[in-house]
Amino acid sequence: MSGSAVEAARAARQASYEMAASPAQMRNEALRILAQLLGEKKEDIFAANRLDLEKAEAEGLAAPALARLRFDGHKLEDVTRGVTALSQMEDPIGQMQIHRELADGLVLRRVSCPIGVVGVIFESRPDALVQIGSLCLKSGNCVLLKGGSEAAETNRALFEVLAEAGRRAGLPDGWAALLETRADVAELLAMDEDVDLLIPRGSGAFVRYIMDHTRIPVLGHSEGVCHLYLDAGCDPKTAANLAVDAKTQYVSACNTIETLLWHREAAAALIASAAALHQAGVKLLADEATQQTLRKAGVPCEAAEEKDWHTEYLALTLSIRCVGSLKEAISHINRYGSHHTDAIVTDSEEAWQRFAALVDSAGVYRNCSTRFADGYRYGFGAEVGIATGRLHARGPMGLEGLCSYKYLLEGHGDTVGEFAEGKRNFTHKDLR
Amino acid sequence: MSGSAVEAARAARQASYEMAASPAQMRNEALRILAQLLGEKKEDIFAANRLDLEKAEAEGLAAPALARLRFDGHKLEDVTRGVTALSQMEDPIGQMQIHRELADGLVLRRVSCPIGVVGVIFESRPDALVQIGSLCLKSGNCVLLKGGSEAAETNRALFEVLAEAGRRAGLPDGWAALLETRADVAELLAMDEDVDLLIPRGSGAFVRYIMDHTRIPVLGHSEGVCHLYLDAGCDPKTAANLAVDAKTQYVSACNTIETLLWHREAAAALIASAAALHQAGVKLLADEATQQTLRKAGVPCEAAEEKDWHTEYLALTLSIRCVGSLKEAISHINRYGSHHTDAIVTDSEEAWQRFAALVDSAGVYRNCSTRFADGYRYGFGAEVGIATGRLHARGPMGLEGLCSYKYLLEGHGDTVGEFAEGKRNFTHKDLR
Repeated sequence: MSGSAVEAARAARQASYEMAASPAQMRNEALRILAQLLGEKKEDIFAANRLDLEKAEAEGLAAPALARLRFDGHKLEDVTRGVTALSQMEDPIGQMQIHRELADGLVLRRVSCPIGVVGVIFESRPDALVQIGSLCLKSGNCVLLKGGSEAAETNRALFEVLAEAGRRAGLPDGWAALLETRADVAELLAMDEDVDLLIPRGSGAFVRYIMDHTRIPVLGHSEGVCHLYLDAGCDPKTAANLAVDAKTQYVSACNTIETLLWHREAAAALIASAAALHQAGVKLLADEATQQTLRKAGVPCEAAEEKDWHTEYLALTLSIRCVGSLKEAISHINRYGSHHTDAIVTDSEEAWQRFAALVDSAGVYRNCSTRFADGYRYGFGAEVGIATGRLHARGPMGLEGLCSYKYLLEGHGDTVGEFAEGKRNFTHKDLR
Repeated sequence: MSGSAVEAARAARQASYEMAASPAQMRNEALRILAQLLGEKKEDIFAANRLDLEKAEAEGLAAPALARLRFDGHKLEDVTRGVTALSQMEDPIGQMQIHRELADGLVLRRVSCPIGVVGVIFESRPDALVQIGSLCLKSGNCVLLKGGSEAAETNRALFEVLAEAGRRAGLPDGWAALLETRADVAELLAMDEDVDLLIPRGSGAFVRYIMDHTRIPVLGHSEGVCHLYLDAGCDPKTAANLAVDAKTQYVSACNTIETLLWHREAAAALIASAAALHQAGVKLLADEATQQTLRKAGVPCEAAEEKDWHTEYLALTLSIRCVGSLKEAISHINRYGSHHTDAIVTDSEEAWQRFAALVDSAGVYRNCSTRFADGYRYGFGAEVGIATGRLHARGPMGLEGLCSYKYLLEGHGDTVGEFAEGKRNFTHKDLR
């Protein structure tokens, strides 16, 4: 359909004003209906998913990709539970953030409001459609959803349920739209008048491509090069447990570690970690000092190259480097990392304070796995993505990240001239 | 100097880590020294300003531009007072925004931190250098300052004072740099690895040029097309006072109105406003219905064209349009406005509620002048600019807009695997 993304974006912009003014009750009702319809229509959804799976199998899609594509009873339960939880959460819209008397009879309020129209381009997991769509709904945003083409049938079935829930609850027409083609994405990138935010979820190269081809603000992480640093004298068992969890618990997540750094006085922790990682099937690529230490300990490893320090493997591969000091570890992380999530293993309060203050990442951790960097684990209900930039949302981005605010000022004929002439004065008194 | 902006940006990135970790006491001390040096060095600053003024006069710069360029005792007092006030304000850095137990012994904190390296490109007013430089200093940001070439001598003198204050207080080298050439700006735009945010202050065309030529996030307003809407039956005297203040109190500010909308049942308010505006020297461009009404009342006006509805005059010119309903007024504002600041004159609570909910602007006002849209008037101390986008800061952007945050997570060897296997559960308990 030529022009369909353009039309969808314009319709979403028109719907955005009414959507922003919609009562919480209407949005929560839409979420409840969505949860109910997911149950009622599950056979249609599963049937659509079987079509996608058959096509993907015929095309020889790899097993991990097939697993992401599968939408079964288990995933249905997960997303339904998420939608129900969202319907019960406090309204993120209309929250008063500032309430201040500027001068006698002149009162300022800052109130949260939706961003407006959000475009989300997501990968093959069809459950993302429901998660992202329901987060946008709860926060009063209009949403343009572009899913992976492998999941086209499933996405259509799920989108129909989302749209039907909106219709039944009385949300404005056009608040949500499904985009299906690459041409739609190209059109979307040019709609900077009608789209306020793009959230691309995919490879680093894909996110950078989006950033380079649009004026629309983009939130997301280009990649996740996370580190675990073993500080001088840290506990070998803790180090090994954290290294294995952070590398192998879910190897294709952005919050897994790609590089292990160790202080030259943490050889015991390095050896314990490397042995455990090797046993878990992880290939180790190491600098010269590490290779010497691991060879003596009988742990197999190969030589790392310069490029390994900024590579996101998303695989059972880990680079390891020896550093001479905490300062060197921090410099390495700030230079080669992606400002996502980085952890230190240490018993020293002083080392932790310096690490926390100087590591420039969305998440800075002590004695725990980088895998905790996640909206659900942080207690945000869910997330639309993890942002590694420093503007607007940083880290796991939930409902709060989908909100902006506006300033409402009420007076009684107040002019700036009276203040400029010294006839009146500002009081700037916060009200409760 | 070839490569100077590149070197300045790299040096600022290096300094940014230490700057972010610097104690509030050190940054406040730098502000106190800055205030003191501004007084001690004032004759040098005034002499530098005289050179700029002589050159500008010789080149035939217009009177308003000369006024902006002048840095005299009055402006020195203003900026010094602002710097002293900043030194006494609460530290915006290190504020705990979230404090939450995720699970037994696993505690999350979200703490405010600087954005990092901020590039500011500002117009001819040299006082902006001190205001922006001191806001960045207070918020722990490194800053690259590019001022107008007309103010080159004054900017150099003021920058020297800012840099000296930083040196004496012990701030890291390179935390602030002055850029002077257009080539510097071109280099700056390519430094997306080392610059986190650009704040261009200038014409709409200039801001759009910046947005189109960089990957660095840009905050700022492309223009200020603000509206005053006279609702049915509103008080003519209030309407006229607000219209004159909002249009003429400082005609070249972005928060002045460019269009007056009036409900067809607000003819008395329209006539009173138009007469007062005409008397204040404002040229009126009106649609057909308004022309008829004003001609009968003997107020001179000319025909408006379609382009007038989205023109930022920044001059004593105002477009006027008649609307048939509140809804039509809101549609006009959302379609033609710049989402900056828009006001309604009304006694109706219902009309105000609809206007506040449906107008999609950073500031939505009732019965007061749009000229209040300003960081100082809002009680933010000062502002680096007014943002009309919906991401990160919206409206007047003060210290808060110069901050990001990071998540700090502390545990005792916690792995995600334990939770995935059901051995442990999340508690998500907010701590006080």
